[in-house]
This record gives sequence, C-alpha cells and structure tokens, in this order.
Amino acid sequence: MNHKELITALAIKMNAPKSFVADLLELTVSTCIDQLNNGKTIGFQGFGNFEVRKKVERISVHPVSQVRTLIPPKLVVNFKQSNLLKDKLKKSIQS
Amino acid sequence: MNHKELITALAIKMNAPKSFVADLLELTVSTCIDQLNNGKTIGFQGFGNFEVRKKVERISVHPVSQVRTLIPPKLVVNFKQSNLLKDKLKKSIQS
Repeated sequence: MNHKELITALAIKMNAPKSFVADLLELTVSTCIDQLNNGKTIGFQGFGNFEVRKKVERISVHPVSQVRTLIPPKLVVNFKQSNLLKDKLKKSIQS
Repeated sequence: MNHKELITALAIKMNAPKSFVADLLELTVSTCIDQLNNGKTIGFQGFGNFEVRKKVERISVHPVSQVRTLIPPKLVVNFKQSNLLKDKLKKSIQS
C-alpha cells in the first residue's frame, strides 16, 4: 500500500475529502521528522517507537583492492514495534 | 515525544480538537496494522516504508547448560527510512 492508497483508504474510513487526509498525513510526518531531527523519540500507541541512532564512523576495506575508505558517522531511524503489534503479528503467523 | 504529546502538537498545528486528532491517529495506526497483518508493505511519502519480515525458526543453545531450545518463527515489522529522511538527518549531523 503506497501513500496514495493509504490516503484513499483513510478518506473512506473517515468520510473526509482526500486532500484533507493528505494534508493531515503530511503534517504528521513532518512533525515526526522534526522530532527525529532534534534527536527525540516518537511513540505511536499500539504501533511502536521511532528513535534516531547514531552509527559511528568506521573504516571499510575493499575486499579486492584493499583500499581503505572512511565511512562518516550517520544517523539512522530505528523502529521498535510495540508489544501489541508483536502480539497481533504472532496471531497472524499462528492462524 | 509520546502519543499524547504528538496529539497535542498536531491539534495545535491543525487547529482541531485533541479528540479528533486522537481518533485520526488511531485510525491510521489500525489501518497500518491491518495492512501489515496481511503481509503488505505501507509507504509514507517522505518518511519511509514498513514491511513485515519473517524470521525463520532457529535452535538456540544455552551457553552454559547447553540446553537446546527451538525458537519459533516470528514476524517482525521492519522500517526502512526514505532517502528524503536520510538526507534531512544527514544535514542535522553536519550542522
């Protein structure tokens, strides 16, 4: 399900125009990104938490040419699913 | 930022009552969970994609007692950040 399909599905469930839902989703996403950019975690109840983790710089060695390259530190968004989501997925694997 | 704080922030930005925002978020989350439960991926534009991955069953050996336990297969939600989000985080590490 891509962004458009999600908007359509939500618009039907909410009985609201698609443009309204689209604005809303964008606002939610941009709020999330702002938070993550400030190094803060975000929690969605019943879904999971997002947090930014810093991957430290490291030296990578090319296996053939043996050239060493420094890979700079980077920030990665990590998602940790909530227990509720875990349980729901567990049920779906059992059925 | 937890669920409540996110709702408050969105309510202010949208100029809408908190209860309305809360319903909306819940609907979005439940739609996402439904999709994931059906083994489908979900994409949020400018944020990233969620997909369910199956971790196969494996045998774990207790390092001390050498007892072998079968760990059943499980489903895990995987988040892959979009390039846009990656770029934004890159900028924040440089500044």
